[in-house]
Amino acid sequence: MSKPKEAIEELGKELVKDVLANKQPKMTVPIRALSNITFDRKTETLRLGNNTAERNFFNVAHSKKFLQTLEVAAVSKNLLEDGKHASLRDVFYMVKRTIPNTKTNVVDEQTESDDAIEDLELLTASSREKLNINANKMGSVAGNVVIEDKGDEIDWSKMGSGGWSVPSNVEEIKFKKVKAKYVIYMEKAAVWERLHEDKFWDKQNCIIMSSQGQTTRGIRRLLQRLSEEHKLPIYVLADFDPWGFYIYSVLKFGSINLAHMAESMTLNTARFLGITADDIEKYGLKKHLITFKEVDMKRLEQLQNYEWFKDNKAWQRQFKLMKTFKAKAEIQALSSRGISFITDKYLPEKIKNEDFLK
Amino acid sequence: MSKPKEAIEELGKELVKDVLANKQPKMTVPIRALSNITFDRKTETLRLGNNTAERNFFNVAHSKKFLQTLEVAAVSKNLLEDGKHASLRDVFYMVKRTIPNTKTNVVDEQTESDDAIEDLELLTASSREKLNINANKMGSVAGNVVIEDKGDEIDWSKMGSGGWSVPSNVEEIKFKKVKAKYVIYMEKAAVWERLHEDKFWDKQNCIIMSSQGQTTRGIRRLLQRLSEEHKLPIYVLADFDPWGFYIYSVLKFGSINLAHMAESMTLNTARFLGITADDIEKYGLKKHLITFKEVDMKRLEQLQNYEWFKDNKAWQRQFKLMKTFKAKAEIQALSSRGISFITDKYLPEKIKNEDFLK
Repeated sequence: MSKPKEAIEELGKELVKDVLANKQPKMTVPIRALSNITFDRKTETLRLGNNTAERNFFNVAHSKKFLQTLEVAAVSKNLLEDGKHASLRDVFYMVKRTIPNTKTNVVDEQTESDDAIEDLELLTASSREKLNINANKMGSVAGNVVIEDKGDEIDWSKMGSGGWSVPSNVEEIKFKKVKAKYVIYMEKAAVWERLHEDKFWDKQNCIIMSSQGQTTRGIRRLLQRLSEEHKLPIYVLADFDPWGFYIYSVLKFGSINLAHMAESMTLNTARFLGITADDIEKYGLKKHLITFKEVDMKRLEQLQNYEWFKDNKAWQRQFKLMKTFKAKAEIQALSSRGISFITDKYLPEKIKNEDFLK
Repeated sequence: MSKPKEAIEELGKELVKDVLANKQPKMTVPIRALSNITFDRKTETLRLGNNTAERNFFNVAHSKKFLQTLEVAAVSKNLLEDGKHASLRDVFYMVKRTIPNTKTNVVDEQTESDDAIEDLELLTASSREKLNINANKMGSVAGNVVIEDKGDEIDWSKMGSGGWSVPSNVEEIKFKKVKAKYVIYMEKAAVWERLHEDKFWDKQNCIIMSSQGQTTRGIRRLLQRLSEEHKLPIYVLADFDPWGFYIYSVLKFGSINLAHMAESMTLNTARFLGITADDIEKYGLKKHLITFKEVDMKRLEQLQNYEWFKDNKAWQRQFKLMKTFKAKAEIQALSSRGISFITDKYLPEKIKNEDFLK
C-alpha cells in the first residue's frame, strides 16, 4: 500500500493537471458490485475484478459523486495532517454542507459519505483505517501478549476481569512480546468472560478475543496482524447456525464489501473450531437444538451456494446435517454440561485433536 | 444487603422447615409490576411498593415458578461456592432440563430463568451480580484512576488507544487511586474514541466511559460506585432525542425493571450535560437536525408524562422545545464545527458554566 497522504495529494495533482490542460477532470474507480467480484481460488479470497468506471466532473450523473469523493479526500487529508481520527459518522457531518447558492447538500445520508470513503480507499490503495477514518469500536482481548500503543506498554495478561478494550484502529499498535501460540476468536462477550474467568488463555498459552455479534474491522485487522506478523493460527468459535458460519466465512474468505481490501482483511489461517454438527452429537447438545425459522433455512441455502463453499466437502456436509436437524444451537448450550465444560473439556479436546473445519 | 450465599441457604432452610412441619412450602415475593412501583420523591428513585405475592408449591398455577426459582437458587449457590460467574444465557441452559417421567422442561425460554433470577434477587436481597450471575459485557473506560482487579493493578491512564474493557461484574474491583474529579459517561463508543484521542480526560482530570447504546449493568454499577465511594459527579453525554434523554432517566431515576435494586443502581449525582435544545441554538447545530418519525414523537410524549419528569420544569422545557423542532440531533453533529470542537470548546464550556440539566 502506498502512503495515504501522498496518494491523496497525487489524486489532487492529477485533477489539477487535467484542469490546467483544459481537459475534463476525471477519476477512474474500480466497480464495487457483485458483477465485478471473483473468488480467487489460489488465495481463497473474494477479490475485485478489473472492471472500472470513469467518473467525469462535467457529467451531470457523475458530478455529485465526484464532489463527494473530493470532499472526503480533503477531510481525510486534514485528519492525516493533524494526526487525528474520525468516525464514519463524524466524516458525514464534516462533509455535510449546502453548496452555496443552491439547496443541494454535498451529502444527505451517511451512506453517501461511506460510499465516497470506499471509493477513496480504492483511489489511494489505502484502507479506511490508514486514511484515519474509523468504524465503531467493540470487543475485548486477553492473553500472553505485550503491546505498545500511544506510548503505553500494555500487558494483555494483566488486565483484570475486563481485558483490554480493542480500539477501532489497530494500525499503529506494536507487538513487543507474543508468547501465545494461537488465538480463539468468539462471537460472544459472555463466552469470552467464561474463558477469561477460567484463565483459559493462561493454561493454554493463547489469546482470547471477542466482539458481540458482527466482527468489527478493528478486530479483523488485529486478528490479521497476529496471523501475518506472528504466524498465529486463528480459531473461530461461533454458534451452530448460518450466522455463526457466516462470521467465519467473512473472516476467512472476505466479503463483497471487503473485496477491495482482500489483502489486509482476510485470514487464511482461520479455522472453524465449532460449534459443528458433529459437536452436537458428540457433546450431547441435541436436546438444546433450537428449531429453525424460515429465515434460518433461507440463509443456510444461500451459504450452501456460495462459490467458496460450493466445492468444500467438509462444509457442505455441515450444511447438510444442519438441514437434517432443521435446527441451530448456541455456544452456551455447552453450559448445560457444567459451567466450565467448555474450558476443561470441549476446547482442549477440539484443539488437541485439531478437530477443525477450514 | 445480606450475604447472598447465606441468604440462599436461609431460603432453603425455611422451605425445609415448612415441609417437616407438614405445611405447604411457600415463598413470599414482592410484586414486580407497574402497579407496585412508586416514585420516591425524597430519594428521586423508582422503588418497589409493599405489595407481595405468595408462591405456593401445591398451587398448580405456582408450582412451575416455584421450581424455577429453586433451580436458579441452586445454580447460584453452586456458582458462589465455586467462585465462578455465569451469564444469564448460561443459567438458562444450566436449569433447562426435562422433569423425569414428563415432557415438561423446567424452562423453555430464557425469559423464564431471567424472571426467576429477578425473584431470587428479591428473596435474597442481593443483586444478580452478587449472586454471580452476569449480563453482557460492554464498554470502555480511561482516566486518572488506578484499580486492582483479580490481582492485577490496572492504570486507566495507561491503556493505549483502546482503554480498559469494562467487565459485566465490577463488584470486586478495588479503587487504589482516584485522582479524577468527575466522570463523563457517553452513549457512543465513537465519541469516546474522539475524547480519548484528544486526551480529554488528561487535560480535564476526569474519567471517560462509554458503552454502545443502552447502559449495561456493569457500567451502571461502575458509575454508581465512583459516585458513592469517591463522590464523583457523573455527567451524561447523549443524543438530543427521546432515547438519549431516557438513557439519562434510567441512570438517574432507575427503571421499572430496576426498581427492586434502586439503592445500588441509581445515580443521584448524575447530570445531563447534553445535547440539549439550547445547545442546538448556541452551537449552531440547527441544520443538522433530523426530522422526527412518528415513533420519536410517541416516545417523547411518554417521557413528558413520566412521574419523575412531570414537575421538573427544566426537563419539561426541553421536551417542549424538542416538540417544536419536531426533530432530533446527534452528539456527532458537533463534528460539523470541527473534529475536536467537542473537546476544545463544547465540553469545557458546558462543564465550566455548570450548564447541566438534573
